[in-house]
Amino acid sequence: MSELTTSVEETPQDWLGHGGRGLTSNIVAAEVPPTCHPLGPNNKLVFAPGLLSGTVAANSGRLSAGAKSPLTGTIKESNSGGTAAQLLARCGCKALIIEGQPEEDKWYSLAVSPQGVTISEESELIGKGNFAVLETLAGRLEGKQGVLTIGPAGEMRLCSANISVKDPDGHLRSCGRGGLGAVMGSKKVKFISVDPQDGKVEVALPDDFKTANRAFAKALIDHPVSQTLGTYGTNVLINVINEAGGLPTKNFTSGQFEGHDKISGETMHDIIEERGGKPKHSCQAGCVIQCSQIYNDKDKQYKTSGFEYESIWAMGAGCCVDNLDDIAEADVLMDDIGIDTIETSVAIGVAMEAGVLEFGDGTGICRILKEDVAKGTALGRIIGNGAGSVGRAFGVTRVPVVKNQAIPAYDPRSVKGMAITYATSTMGGDHTVGYAVATNILNVGGSVDPLTKEGQVELSRNLQIATAAIDSTGMCLFIAFAALDDPACLPALIDLINARYDLSLTGDDVTNLGKSILKTEKGFNEAAGFNNADDRLPEFFYTEPLPPHNSVVDFSGEEIDSFWNF
Amino acid sequence: MSELTTSVEETPQDWLGHGGRGLTSNIVAAEVPPTCHPLGPNNKLVFAPGLLSGTVAANSGRLSAGAKSPLTGTIKESNSGGTAAQLLARCGCKALIIEGQPEEDKWYSLAVSPQGVTISEESELIGKGNFAVLETLAGRLEGKQGVLTIGPAGEMRLCSANISVKDPDGHLRSCGRGGLGAVMGSKKVKFISVDPQDGKVEVALPDDFKTANRAFAKALIDHPVSQTLGTYGTNVLINVINEAGGLPTKNFTSGQFEGHDKISGETMHDIIEERGGKPKHSCQAGCVIQCSQIYNDKDKQYKTSGFEYESIWAMGAGCCVDNLDDIAEADVLMDDIGIDTIETSVAIGVAMEAGVLEFGDGTGICRILKEDVAKGTALGRIIGNGAGSVGRAFGVTRVPVVKNQAIPAYDPRSVKGMAITYATSTMGGDHTVGYAVATNILNVGGSVDPLTKEGQVELSRNLQIATAAIDSTGMCLFIAFAALDDPACLPALIDLINARYDLSLTGDDVTNLGKSILKTEKGFNEAAGFNNADDRLPEFFYTEPLPPHNSVVDFSGEEIDSFWNF
Repeated sequence: MSELTTSVEETPQDWLGHGGRGLTSNIVAAEVPPTCHPLGPNNKLVFAPGLLSGTVAANSGRLSAGAKSPLTGTIKESNSGGTAAQLLARCGCKALIIEGQPEEDKWYSLAVSPQGVTISEESELIGKGNFAVLETLAGRLEGKQGVLTIGPAGEMRLCSANISVKDPDGHLRSCGRGGLGAVMGSKKVKFISVDPQDGKVEVALPDDFKTANRAFAKALIDHPVSQTLGTYGTNVLINVINEAGGLPTKNFTSGQFEGHDKISGETMHDIIEERGGKPKHSCQAGCVIQCSQIYNDKDKQYKTSGFEYESIWAMGAGCCVDNLDDIAEADVLMDDIGIDTIETSVAIGVAMEAGVLEFGDGTGICRILKEDVAKGTALGRIIGNGAGSVGRAFGVTRVPVVKNQAIPAYDPRSVKGMAITYATSTMGGDHTVGYAVATNILNVGGSVDPLTKEGQVELSRNLQIATAAIDSTGMCLFIAFAALDDPACLPALIDLINARYDLSLTGDDVTNLGKSILKTEKGFNEAAGFNNADDRLPEFFYTEPLPPHNSVVDFSGEEIDSFWNF
Repeated sequence: MSELTTSVEETPQDWLGHGGRGLTSNIVAAEVPPTCHPLGPNNKLVFAPGLLSGTVAANSGRLSAGAKSPLTGTIKESNSGGTAAQLLARCGCKALIIEGQPEEDKWYSLAVSPQGVTISEESELIGKGNFAVLETLAGRLEGKQGVLTIGPAGEMRLCSANISVKDPDGHLRSCGRGGLGAVMGSKKVKFISVDPQDGKVEVALPDDFKTANRAFAKALIDHPVSQTLGTYGTNVLINVINEAGGLPTKNFTSGQFEGHDKISGETMHDIIEERGGKPKHSCQAGCVIQCSQIYNDKDKQYKTSGFEYESIWAMGAGCCVDNLDDIAEADVLMDDIGIDTIETSVAIGVAMEAGVLEFGDGTGICRILKEDVAKGTALGRIIGNGAGSVGRAFGVTRVPVVKNQAIPAYDPRSVKGMAITYATSTMGGDHTVGYAVATNILNVGGSVDPLTKEGQVELSRNLQIATAAIDSTGMCLFIAFAALDDPACLPALIDLINARYDLSLTGDDVTNLGKSILKTEKGFNEAAGFNNADDRLPEFFYTEPLPPHNSVVDFSGEEIDSFWNF
């Protein structure tokens, strides 16, 4: 962006075997100076479809975005559904790397096609929300282009700004976490369009691929968690996690929320049916789980989709709001502003503790989003820069962040596998990198008591290694439930990769890939200045017992550090 | 403060030889968990007069305050003139340690006397500025009590909040840096009074003491820098540093300020004379340098004192304000709010770069101080939490902080000894801990070319070791000029300590004391998670050449780290 030039380069030999997170993390680790300012010209923003993206393999359309995070200062990978990963792969693009920074205060868009990338100056859409971007581009571009866009939050370089990705119906999904939208904004790129390509990517061994995909899709469809997700969406977890006493409530002061029934997946399912919405919806072509939904408003008009448990928990239990329509309204506002629903809602919970707003004031949340965050007032910037920012601004000591990123929807005092994941994640407080909830609470992949320390380090380690590999394939993380329980699933996934590229990878190769990605990411973080003191939870998790179990985090530093013994 | 109880304890044997910074740092390192939240109940706030405080030794009345800093997360010592150190010493108090946190949302004051400490609930002065506190206490207390107080900034626990100390004329000096006022606020202590004591502390060998003090005071008085400081105050440096091309201007984008003459020490001296102020003024009894002053307004009424170079630089050149009366007004406002003039002014410079205010708008600065910082609006909190906070809030990449503390009045690109001091200081960006300006620019203690790397690490190391020792004696740092140049000065200082305690310390003992303090402080920081990656300057100092010399910081990481080879 410094010279407003583009070029197409062959993939270096070493990176041919990488895709998705493995590729973004390797590129960032190789090319971004670890101590650079994340919003300065030396950071790079990398997009990479997964190894299987662009094929017909079920659930293979995740797009990884990577950079040094302005929120955490660590390496960051954030992935999303939508159509962009598949379209980029079909354009022959293994990774899109945006570097430098324009000298002039002008904004641009990028267009990716099989011929390369073009840069155009953009003015009409600057300052506009994501929905306006999508609507305008639907008119301006012909056909079913992929779109990656930032809202006002990204333009303002707020540390919670996300990058949104158009889904097949023209709605939005997001690379939500870590403020990568701010990095895109720092490079003055408002949106990226990707040429629609009908043809699938070439597959080396088509018959083997078809066979493997059939076995793989069957494993996904057959798993009970997949079926539950299809019916109730991810929000089925509200009642489950509340029952387990791990639903962080009122800024992490309780593990149960009185209003849980009013915001639960079951209640939401009923509302959706009643209002003529859709309980099932795909965020990408080829999804066989369909955990998204169409949530209509009281007048039976489309309100939102991709209405997830973590968002509903954060605005709901976290801020004590028990009205799903208020939460849906806030969800839409955050999508339009282009800001991470987890980070922002946790930030609002901390602001409520500081007295900025009353707990439970759902309309107040919407007002602050519209009047402050969207407009970039001082309060809006404090909140839009995340939970840590709010804590520092108001001198709050109960601030649930690791490496300055908000901890999501599972209290680490009651779901102790998550304590290890949050603490050791190379990305800061994140649930997706090692979803110990599966084995702590859902009894997927066995069972480990959520209230004891035993087995949690090993559990988180195995999950984080596997997840790093899965995040490289383009697969949605929800294949993990089947992969953990159904012996046919993981071999089928490996067969898919082998058939796609004519390889003969084994399960060990996949494990080694996961290990190598984690170590590459950790190496970047260490070079940026992080050490094991950063792999710790905030003080209050160790000292404030969480009702109803009155448990605290009791891992020693040595126990946490043993995570890295591999 | 948790139980609202006090106790008097004998000084442990190991700490008997410590005073001032040596004592506060040793107590904090021994008793504060390094990873605790600085505003939580586990931090401790420690005050300690120096080893010679309370005696008649010239310039021996500095008070050290120590804690884990909410601004930097490191150990912190910040010292100040005023009367409190001498009065505490005369009460027989070697250190005052405030720990815990009240459960209830009530405020308190502490009263120190030879009999111990009492705690009283306080309501009248809550929310009041420092000047109102002094005025009210002048009526409420009889005699010449010492007073330590926090303003609204400390009550709001802003990271730039200072602790102000009453001087002999009822004006204020401050333990300015690192947000220790926020720690005092977190403990709900609004002010501390110290009983007036007429008797001096007992001296073991009175005759030796008198002889040493005579030699010591003569060395101070005879040094040309002392004389210049007495005439023009510290602000004599504006023209000197501007001439050297090291006066950080317009948020660190130039090393020279066009308006330097209008805010210089020479101009200020003329204004003071013209308006019937005083160019010379002592912040403590027994000062033979008298670098403070009484600065009157246009109507020849008292406006401010302790009007220092670093404050005038920060609001002046840093924010491009060339009107001394605007700067004086802002200085008074910051003193009343109880907020560090360096941190806050650098923060405003960053805010100006972000477009919050125009560079040069002195009345705008005063408006923001009154309407935002004093009232704790969202913008006020962003600014009141320091330069790093402003940078993060507005996505500015040129943010002159080390360990999140604002770098003061000497650009490290043109005064390279200061690059080492800022980077390696255990306290974050700070000029006092190793004032290489002396030898880089003022030719005190020899001469080292400010624009080359050679000799700077050794220079900073020697100065930091000596300063840690001086900060333990209760001596004002301005004795260092004489100590560096006059062979009679340092032996006389050591003789003073020996005569006070009947010891036989040598110069090596003093050096070893300095080394041991630095290592104790570094040990705390390492246990809190800091490592050598934190001993670096912000990226832009390495990449943006500074006019007029167009120099950059060019120390390698290894060169910086070699500072610690002792």
